[in-house]
Amino acid sequence: MKTKVGIVTCGGLCPGLNNVIRSLVNELYYRYGISRILGIQYGYEGLIPSYNHPVIELTAAMVNYIHLTGGTFLGSSRGDQDVEKMVDTLEIMNINILFCIGGDGTFRGAHEIHKEVQKRKLKICITGIPKTIDNDIDLIQKSFGFETAFSIANDIIRNAHNEASGAFNGIALVKLMGRDSGFIAANAALSIQEVNFVLVPEITFDLYGQRGFLRVLKKRLEERHHAVIVVAEGAGQEFFECADENKDVSGNIKYKDIGIYLKDKISEEFENKGFPYSIKYIDPSYIIRSAPANANDSKFCNLLAQNAVHAALSGKTDFVIGFWNNQFTLMPIEMVVAKRKKIDVEDELWWNVLEATGQPISMKNP
Amino acid sequence: MKTKVGIVTCGGLCPGLNNVIRSLVNELYYRYGISRILGIQYGYEGLIPSYNHPVIELTAAMVNYIHLTGGTFLGSSRGDQDVEKMVDTLEIMNINILFCIGGDGTFRGAHEIHKEVQKRKLKICITGIPKTIDNDIDLIQKSFGFETAFSIANDIIRNAHNEASGAFNGIALVKLMGRDSGFIAANAALSIQEVNFVLVPEITFDLYGQRGFLRVLKKRLEERHHAVIVVAEGAGQEFFECADENKDVSGNIKYKDIGIYLKDKISEEFENKGFPYSIKYIDPSYIIRSAPANANDSKFCNLLAQNAVHAALSGKTDFVIGFWNNQFTLMPIEMVVAKRKKIDVEDELWWNVLEATGQPISMKNP
Amino acid sequence: MKTKVGIVTCGGLCPGLNNVIRSLVNELYYRYGISRILGIQYGYEGLIPSYNHPVIELTAAMVNYIHLTGGTFLGSSRGDQDVEKMVDTLEIMNINILFCIGGDGTFRGAHEIHKEVQKRKLKICITGIPKTIDNDIDLIQKSFGFETAFSIANDIIRNAHNEASGAFNGIALVKLMGRDSGFIAANAALSIQEVNFVLVPEITFDLYGQRGFLRVLKKRLEERHHAVIVVAEGAGQEFFECADENKDVSGNIKYKDIGIYLKDKISEEFENKGFPYSIKYIDPSYIIRSAPANANDSKFCNLLAQNAVHAALSGKTDFVIGFWNNQFTLMPIEMVVAKRKKIDVEDELWWNVLEATGQPISMKNP
Amino acid sequence: MKTKVGIVTCGGLCPGLNNVIRSLVNELYYRYGISRILGIQYGYEGLIPSYNHPVIELTAAMVNYIHLTGGTFLGSSRGDQDVEKMVDTLEIMNINILFCIGGDGTFRGAHEIHKEVQKRKLKICITGIPKTIDNDIDLIQKSFGFETAFSIANDIIRNAHNEASGAFNGIALVKLMGRDSGFIAANAALSIQEVNFVLVPEITFDLYGQRGFLRVLKKRLEERHHAVIVVAEGAGQEFFECADENKDVSGNIKYKDIGIYLKDKISEEFENKGFPYSIKYIDPSYIIRSAPANANDSKFCNLLAQNAVHAALSGKTDFVIGFWNNQFTLMPIEMVVAKRKKIDVEDELWWNVLEATGQPISMKNP
Repeated sequence: MKTKVGIVTCGGLCPGLNNVIRSLVNELYYRYGISRILGIQYGYEGLIPSYNHPVIELTAAMVNYIHLTGGTFLGSSRGDQDVEKMVDTLEIMNINILFCIGGDGTFRGAHEIHKEVQKRKLKICITGIPKTIDNDIDLIQKSFGFETAFSIANDIIRNAHNEASGAFNGIALVKLMGRDSGFIAANAALSIQEVNFVLVPEITFDLYGQRGFLRVLKKRLEERHHAVIVVAEGAGQEFFECADENKDVSGNIKYKDIGIYLKDKISEEFENKGFPYSIKYIDPSYIIRSAPANANDSKFCNLLAQNAVHAALSGKTDFVIGFWNNQFTLMPIEMVVAKRKKIDVEDELWWNVLEATGQPISMKNP
Repeated sequence: MKTKVGIVTCGGLCPGLNNVIRSLVNELYYRYGISRILGIQYGYEGLIPSYNHPVIELTAAMVNYIHLTGGTFLGSSRGDQDVEKMVDTLEIMNINILFCIGGDGTFRGAHEIHKEVQKRKLKICITGIPKTIDNDIDLIQKSFGFETAFSIANDIIRNAHNEASGAFNGIALVKLMGRDSGFIAANAALSIQEVNFVLVPEITFDLYGQRGFLRVLKKRLEERHHAVIVVAEGAGQEFFECADENKDVSGNIKYKDIGIYLKDKISEEFENKGFPYSIKYIDPSYIIRSAPANANDSKFCNLLAQNAVHAALSGKTDFVIGFWNNQFTLMPIEMVVAKRKKIDVEDELWWNVLEATGQPISMKNP
Repeated sequence: MKTKVGIVTCGGLCPGLNNVIRSLVNELYYRYGISRILGIQYGYEGLIPSYNHPVIELTAAMVNYIHLTGGTFLGSSRGDQDVEKMVDTLEIMNINILFCIGGDGTFRGAHEIHKEVQKRKLKICITGIPKTIDNDIDLIQKSFGFETAFSIANDIIRNAHNEASGAFNGIALVKLMGRDSGFIAANAALSIQEVNFVLVPEITFDLYGQRGFLRVLKKRLEERHHAVIVVAEGAGQEFFECADENKDVSGNIKYKDIGIYLKDKISEEFENKGFPYSIKYIDPSYIIRSAPANANDSKFCNLLAQNAVHAALSGKTDFVIGFWNNQFTLMPIEMVVAKRKKIDVEDELWWNVLEATGQPISMKNP
Repeated sequence: MKTKVGIVTCGGLCPGLNNVIRSLVNELYYRYGISRILGIQYGYEGLIPSYNHPVIELTAAMVNYIHLTGGTFLGSSRGDQDVEKMVDTLEIMNINILFCIGGDGTFRGAHEIHKEVQKRKLKICITGIPKTIDNDIDLIQKSFGFETAFSIANDIIRNAHNEASGAFNGIALVKLMGRDSGFIAANAALSIQEVNFVLVPEITFDLYGQRGFLRVLKKRLEERHHAVIVVAEGAGQEFFECADENKDVSGNIKYKDIGIYLKDKISEEFENKGFPYSIKYIDPSYIIRSAPANANDSKFCNLLAQNAVHAALSGKTDFVIGFWNNQFTLMPIEMVVAKRKKIDVEDELWWNVLEATGQPISMKNP
C-alpha cells in the first residue's frame, strides 16, 4: 500500500487517547499493511511549519506500551490554525488520510480542512474520532474516557467523604469536569452513593433564601454532621457577570471558578452565623483527565479506532465515528457539532441522582 | 411501616453482591422507613431450620462498608431446598418481601416459592435480582459484575502476556469463567488486544489436523515466539465423554477442566515434536468473582436495587429486575429462565474478536 | 478483664488510621479479652462534655471493614483542649488506658494529660501512637501512611507528567505535603523518575537571577519542552513576609501557599518574556491523606497497634511506640516531640534526588 | 565513551525487572553518555549463537514505558550455558560491562563468566543485580519485587477470604511463592490479618493426630465457620518421597505441589468424616510475579540500578549490589550465593505471624 496516514490529537487530555493512537497504528499496520504513519505533534500546530514541531514516524513497536499511561503520546494544543497552511502541509507530506481526534472545535477545523481539500480537488480523507470527557457530543451515546473519568471521580469522592466525615460538620467540595453538561458529576454520584449535592450546569440554583443551597446545606450538617458536594465546572455560571465573558484560544468561554466561589460563600455564611464547620476543597480535574483508560474504555477505544480505519480505507471522508444504540455509526461532521448533549432533568438519570443524594428537586426560591 | 423484608444471596460469588445488599438496605431504610430487614445466611439453606444458620438483623450502619470488598456479607450456597419448609420459615418470620439475588437455579427456586405462597394465599412478594457473572441470562442486556469480571481478566491477561513474552516460544493459557457463553473471554480479549486465541463454548474446534488448534498455535509461535490463549470454562466440552456428565448440587453439569486438558495436550504435542516451548497455566476464577465491583458496576447495582425496592413495594411479585435497551425492566421470572444468552458468531462481537486475535474463523477440519 | 480502654485520633488525616483503630480493637478483644472499648469522637474534643460528641462502643464486628477506606472512623479535630476537663471525663468514664493517635501537638496534649493523671494519682495509662504523614517525627525511622502517601503521589505525578508532556513547553506543578520536611516529595521523585525539580523546606532557593529557579526551568523547557515540578508545602516560605505568620488552632504556623505563588511567578515571568508555555497546577493533598493504607503500611499499622497494646497492658505509660533500626521501640513522649526529623542535604537521599531530577545542587545566587 | 554494555535477565519473572532495565539504560545514557547498550534476549541463551536470539540495541526512548507493565522486556530463560561460548560472544560483541539480573543460579553463572574473563585476561566487568521474589538471598536485607509480591498476595488473600466466608465452613487455600523461605506468606499474612494458617518451608507439621493440621483446621471451622490457609510452595516437602527428587533445568529441585496435596488431603478427611465443608484452591503465582512493581519497589529498583552503574563504571567486577542495614552495599558474588536467608522461628517476624493467625506454635505430634 502506498497510503500515507496522519494522526493528530487536539484539545484537552482524555483517558484513552493513547489507546486510540495505538489501535489506529496496529490496525493500519497489521490489517492493512500500511507502514507510513505520521504522528502530527501538538495538535493542529503540528501542521503549521512555523511551529517547528517535527512529525514522528510511528511504528507498532513505538506505540506498544503507550496505552499503559494516560495523556497523548503526540502532544496536543488548543485553538484554530490557518486552514490553507495546514492543507499545504498535508499536500507536501503526501498524506492521504488524516485522523483527527478531538472535540467540537477540532471537528470544525477538520470540516474546514475537508472543504479546502475539496476545493483543491485533493484525495485526502478526513476522519474525526470524537473525544469529549464530558460525554456531551450530540448524537453520540457515549464517548471514550467518560467512564474512566467518573470511575476515578468515584474514588476521589470516597476520599473526599473521608475528609468530610473526619471532621465535625465537615464539608468536602469536589469540582469535576462538565462545562455544559453534568454527566460526570451525576454518574459519579450514582456510583459512590455518598454525595449529598450534585450541582450541574443544566440546573440553576440560588445560594440564599428559604430554598437556597446554603440553607439546605446547613440543615444537612445539623442532621448528619458532614456533607459531600460535587459541582460540575460549568454549574452556577449565572453567579458571574456576563461582561467578564472572555473566550480562550479554542473559542470556549473561560468559565469562572465555581468551586472557589462556592467555597468562599459557604465559609463566609457559616463564619457570619458562627456555625462550626470545616471545609475541604478538591479540584482533581488534571489528575482525572490524564489517567489511563480503564478496561471497558480500552475496549471501546480499540473498536472505535478499528471502525475509523475501516471507514477511512473504504474511501469515506468528512465523517465522525459515532456510537448510538450500542452500535458504531458514521456521522457527517457537521451533524455532530450542531449542538451539545445535556442532562434532561425530566429523565431517569436526574431522578436517580435526586434519589441517591436526597437533595431537593429545586434550590431556587419562588 | 410494618413491612418485614428478607434478603438472600444464592449461587457462586459475583462482584457487586455486597453493593446490592447495601443498596437494598439503604433504599428500604432511608426512602421507605423500613427497619426490619433480615439477612438470610448461606442462601436458601438459611430458610431451612435444620441448618441452624441464624438470620442477621441488618442495619444501615452494619452494611456501610461491605461494598468495599467482594464476596457476600450474607454467605451463599448452591442447590435446591424444600419449598414447603422455606415458605414455613417465611411465614414464621412474618416476612412480606423476599429479595432473591441469584441466577437461573435461584430463580427457579424463587418461582417455586412464589407458587407455594400463592397456594397458601399468603401476601409475600418474591423479587429476583439477576446475578450472572457470565452475562448469560436471556433478555437481560447486561448483568452486574460482568464488566468488573472482564476488567480484572484484562489485567490478569496482561500479566499472562508478560509470562508468555518472557520466555522463548512462551505460551500463557488463561481459563476464564463462561460455562455456556464466552462473553467474559470475548470482552477481555477486546479490551487487552494481546490475546491470540479465544476459545468459547459457542464454537467447537479440533485439536489436531490441518486446521486444528495445535497446528495454528505452532504457526503463531514460529512467527512471533509467544502466544496468549484465553479459554472459557465451557469450551471444548465435546472432547470429554458424555457418559461422564454428572451434575453438581445446583443441577449444573460438572464441567471437565478444559484448561488442564489443553495444557496437557499442548505439552504432549510439542514434547513429541521436539518443539521448544514453555507453558504457564493460569486459572484466576476465584480471584475474579470474589473481587469488589468497579465504579460502573457499583452504579448499576445501586440502580438495580433501587428499582427492585420500588417494584416490590408497589406490590409486584414473581418478577425479575431486568435491563434492556439501556432501560430497567420488570420481567416475569419464568421468562428469563427459559433459555440462555449466547455469543452469536454472525454478530459484530465475534467478528471483532476474530479481528483482535487474528485467529482463523474456524479451527475445525473439513 | 475489667479494663476499659479509650481510643482517640487527632490532627489531620493519614492513611492507616482505620487500620490502627481496627488492630487495637482486635488485639484488645481477641488476645486480651477486653470488650469495653470506647471510641472518642472528633479528637480531644470528644473528651470535653460541652461539645456533645457521644462516644462509640467499639466492637470487632463494627470495625471489621473500616480499613478498606481511608479517613478515621472516629473523626478527628485539631487543637488543645482543657486538660483538667479531659481528665475529669476519663475519670467519669472509668477509662484505664487511653490510646492517643496523633502527631506532635497530640503528644504534647497526651503528656499534659499524663501529668494531670499523675497529680490526681489516677491509674490511667497514656499511650501515644505516632501519626505523621510527613515522616518527620524525630527518632522514628518511618511512620505509618508515609509510604502510601508517596506511592499515591507517584501515580499523581505520572498523570501530571502526562499533562506536562501533552503540551508544548508544558509545565506540571504538583504541591505535596511536607510542612517542615520534604520526605514525601523526595521519595515520590525517586520512585517515578519523571520529576525535574524537587523543592523542599530544607533548601532555600532564589526565583530570579543567574542561578534562580525560573532561569533553570526555562533552560529545561528549551531543551526538552516539558517540565515536572514537585514542591513541598513548606518550601519557599522565606518568600512570604514574617509579619504574616499566624498560627492555626493546633499552634502550627499557617503556611502561605507556595504552590499558587510559584504558579503565579512562573506565569508572570514567561508572559513577560513572551516565552510560550502552558502550566497545570495540581494540589492533591486531601486526596492522598484520606486514602486507605497500602499493604506494607497496613502491616506496619497492625504491628504498631499490637506493640502498643502489649506495652499498655504491661503497665507502661507516657510513652510512644517508635520504630528505629527496623525494630519497634518504646520512647518517652517528651523525647519524640523535642525536634523534627529533616532531610540532610549531605545525605544519600538528597544526592539521589539530585541525580534523579538533574536539578542543580543550588538555585541560590552567590 | 566507547564503553559497550550488555544487560541480561535470567530465571523466573519478578516485579521490577523492567524498572531495573530502564534505569540501567537511563543512567548509562543520561549520566555517563553511553549509547551502545545491548539487550541480550532470553537470559544466558542470548549469549549462545546457536539459539539465534538477536540482541536488541536499547535506547532511552525504547524503554521509556516498559516499567508500566511487569515481565522482562528482554525475555528470560533458566539454566546454565557453556561458559566459554558465552565469553566468546562477549568478546566478539566487544562488550565491556555485563549486567546480570538474576538469582543464585544466575550469579553462579556470572562468577564462572568472570573466571573465564580473567583467564583470558579480558577487560569485561561482570555485575550482578540480585533478583529473588522470595527475598531469600543471604546478606541482602530486601530484594526488589518482594514487597510488590506480598502486596498483591494481600489483595488476593482478601478475595480468598471472601470465598471462604461466602460458604458455610468455607476454606480458602492459597499457595504462594517461597521455595525455601516463607517470607512472602508471612508478610502477606501480617498485612491482611485474615489468615488463619501460614505454612512455610522452615517449619514441618503433621497432617494427622492430636496436634496435626487437619484437626486444628476442623476446630477452627467449628468455631468460626470459615478458614483461610496460606501455604508457601516449599512447605511440607517432607510429605513427598525423596526418591522423586528430580532437578529442573536450573538445577533446582522440582517441588511437588503441596497446594494440590493439601487440598486433596483436606477434602478426603472431611468427606470421610461427613463434615460439611467447601474448599477453594487458588494458585496465583504467575499473576503475582508478572505484575509491575509498586512505587516503593520502583524506587528501590531505580537506586539499585544507579548504584550498579556507578560501581561498574568505577571499574569493579565480580560483585553484586546488595542492601543491608538500609544501605546499598557491594558484595563479592561468591559470598551471596553461599547460603539462603530463612525465617528464624525464634524471631519477632514469626511470633507476629503466630499472633496474627492464632495458629498453634507447633502442629507436630510429640
